Amino acid sequence: VSSQRIVVVGADATGMSAASRAKRRAPEIQVEAYDLGRYVSYGACGIPYAVSGEVGRVEDLVVISPDRFREERGIEVFTRHLVERIVPAEKKILVRDLAAGRVKERAYDKLVFSTGAEPITPKGIDPGLEEVFFIRNLEDAQRLKSFLAERKPGRAVIVGAGYIGLEMAESLAKAGLRVQVTVRGERVLSSAEEEISSALAGELKRQGVELVTGAVPKATERPARGGVRLELMDGRELTADLLLVGAGVRPRSELAEEAGLKLGVKGAVAVDRLQRTSDPDIFSGGDCAEAYHRLLGRNTYVPLALGANRQGRVIGDNLVGGKSEFPGILATTVTKVFDLTAARTGLSLREAREEGLEAVKVVTKAPSRASYYPGSSPITTCLIAEKGTGRPLGAQMVGLDGVAKRIDIWGTALSAGLSLEEIGDLDLAYAPPYSPVWDPVLVTAGVALKKIS
Amino acid sequence: VSSQRIVVVGADATGMSAASRAKRRAPEIQVEAYDLGRYVSYGACGIPYAVSGEVGRVEDLVVISPDRFREERGIEVFTRHLVERIVPAEKKILVRDLAAGRVKERAYDKLVFSTGAEPITPKGIDPGLEEVFFIRNLEDAQRLKSFLAERKPGRAVIVGAGYIGLEMAESLAKAGLRVQVTVRGERVLSSAEEEISSALAGELKRQGVELVTGAVPKATERPARGGVRLELMDGRELTADLLLVGAGVRPRSELAEEAGLKLGVKGAVAVDRLQRTSDPDIFSGGDCAEAYHRLLGRNTYVPLALGANRQGRVIGDNLVGGKSEFPGILATTVTKVFDLTAARTGLSLREAREEGLEAVKVVTKAPSRASYYPGSSPITTCLIAEKGTGRPLGAQMVGLDGVAKRIDIWGTALSAGLSLEEIGDLDLAYAPPYSPVWDPVLVTAGVALKKIS
Repeated sequence: VSSQRIVVVGADATGMSAASRAKRRAPEIQVEAYDLGRYVSYGACGIPYAVSGEVGRVEDLVVISPDRFREERGIEVFTRHLVERIVPAEKKILVRDLAAGRVKERAYDKLVFSTGAEPITPKGIDPGLEEVFFIRNLEDAQRLKSFLAERKPGRAVIVGAGYIGLEMAESLAKAGLRVQVTVRGERVLSSAEEEISSALAGELKRQGVELVTGAVPKATERPARGGVRLELMDGRELTADLLLVGAGVRPRSELAEEAGLKLGVKGAVAVDRLQRTSDPDIFSGGDCAEAYHRLLGRNTYVPLALGANRQGRVIGDNLVGGKSEFPGILATTVTKVFDLTAARTGLSLREAREEGLEAVKVVTKAPSRASYYPGSSPITTCLIAEKGTGRPLGAQMVGLDGVAKRIDIWGTALSAGLSLEEIGDLDLAYAPPYSPVWDPVLVTAGVALKKIS
Repeated sequence: VSSQRIVVVGADATGMSAASRAKRRAPEIQVEAYDLGRYVSYGACGIPYAVSGEVGRVEDLVVISPDRFREERGIEVFTRHLVERIVPAEKKILVRDLAAGRVKERAYDKLVFSTGAEPITPKGIDPGLEEVFFIRNLEDAQRLKSFLAERKPGRAVIVGAGYIGLEMAESLAKAGLRVQVTVRGERVLSSAEEEISSALAGELKRQGVELVTGAVPKATERPARGGVRLELMDGRELTADLLLVGAGVRPRSELAEEAGLKLGVKGAVAVDRLQRTSDPDIFSGGDCAEAYHRLLGRNTYVPLALGANRQGRVIGDNLVGGKSEFPGILATTVTKVFDLTAARTGLSLREAREEGLEAVKVVTKAPSRASYYPGSSPITTCLIAEKGTGRPLGAQMVGLDGVAKRIDIWGTALSAGLSLEEIGDLDLAYAPPYSPVWDPVLVTAGVALKKIS
């Protein structure tokens, strides 16, 4: 380990967590990280709030600056550096300093491949138009914020209603724009249970955001009088001052593929439980790599921030001789859409059935607080459980109040393998301002027990 | 079972849950419940909010009226009825109808003893004074609310700073009174860890509530010019327009003792895991009885609403031939004190050490949301864990934001017997408005792991 050089390709949360952990464990090693962007170590999930103005400046999302990485952690971070090739046979990389234009070669003993994901550009959308925006990094956020400040756009079209699409709908509406959200099918957040989607659609409507369903992009163009026009396959046309794409992401794995690394699920870098790629000296994790799913017992592709950070720590241990195993994800997520919170953990009904499980869904509605206490409002829970055994497989919740950390009760229970009966017997916190005596989690476990057995 | 008569003595949450469950399981049985009070089935924990005016009327706390018990559940509820004797040898009770003045005899096949708890009157306080109040039932709340409306008191002294004392301090302050809270020692909520107590004391001060420490009551009297004067052992005197006692509760178990039932911890009715008393035909649970503690593996006395309800269901099953076991409590509680929330689950450091466990306390401070997101504020967590094994034994939290349901992550983990390592690996929900990437629970597990191992 002693004089090893570790090279981090892509300074995302995984890469920087790995670097920090490795350097803490073995201060004598040398760590250098290269990233294409201007910023590293920032809360990308905070972009919607920086755009809306709820968080003051985009730069406030930066957690640790490159200087602090250097000074406090002894990690060299090179921003605006494009790694052009990885040559595993010679254990070196070719990296271009974008400012200076020079390419240099750097040798590595171990490499961390953590290039993250990139937004998908749907067919028919021209990503080069000035009025077309993606939400990928802080530069994107800055460009959007400048555009809002300078052009004072009145109308936005958002293509896609996943997490980013929905959060940006709120963000742009709060920034004063009239917002239309387009979806290909009928539902927003189509990966969620229908009950969750319809609650979110209701909230969008209440907040004055228009949902355009069955909308398949055909072309974008810039009309003569300015703005952007989105033509749909069925002939409809939407015009706006800006168009924001939130159509999902894909792993940025081309460089890994060129280096001969094995790709796995959805083109993500294949990894084992130690976060090793097919090359024993190259580790990977985060949004460019597969993630081990605790309930599925195999790798999947669910790019999420906490998983990326946790994988980084595992890599950090293993870079310096450890044998840490990544325990896996439950694909737990939570999102705020105006006044509503939607959260999930574990499998959806569709995912469970695709796994060949005989799964059922139980839907409950229970108050977030004592029903007489101000602010009490119903939480809808969709519980997915295995028929016969009654084993809980996943939970989804939506409501105005008390959803975000309640989903973690389900997540903890799923991780621990608790039965519905054990969940129904949990001694959960009760006080009128926070919960009814029978918490929605307990109610749901009880109802599910009856329905399933 | 068929023509059995079940008599419920004391129509508290346990009694009415037991009655409802038994009747649902075996509709042919006859169930009658007797209670001294005017109201049954109400959210006593909501009283502070009904007094402050946050909940409109005291009667809004009633969940199910006696009429609805009769009509919808087939359960006869007799309010204002005092059970004067239980005669197990003859399987009968003597009950006085307080309105009519008559005493009648009723035979039972099975009896549920669920008389609840009663407030402790500290030595030196005259409970008969018009200006002295206890918070026990809806009648107490009504008397206090009328007093506030009619007398317009300006100052209140609260004796005791447990849950009721603290919640009523907020309640009376919100009702416009100047409030002094007296404690015998130095700390409020002295059952909690010191970090929690001092945060709560700080909040009281910030909100203009005066804390009077080292205050041992000697006498109460009514000065000539009205109001009430509390004389303390050290000679200090506090005067106010009303005095409210929140000095804890004790099990109302005299009647059970007279009937020959065995008493246990702190004079509470002794029960087994099936909630049977020492008489095989008499069940007990709720605030008059012992409660099985999951981590201690034995009975204790912790009167809490959810436990009382859960025990009621167990009794309901077992009244009609079931063999349900009460899985136990973790003594999980949460309380709102002005803007702060304090919550706990499991054992305190003192409790753990009293059990002979070599326990340590780890204290962390971590933000409730992404640090850049508005409303993010630090949560202080005290984690109690066993030295050597690292087994978590209890957790306490205090903060302005995100405490109430986060404690349930710890409670679920404690119930499931998760290790600190497993807790640190939980896939918890992250989004900037609700949590930092590393939730305070994960942070605390990580810090504790390092400190303990």
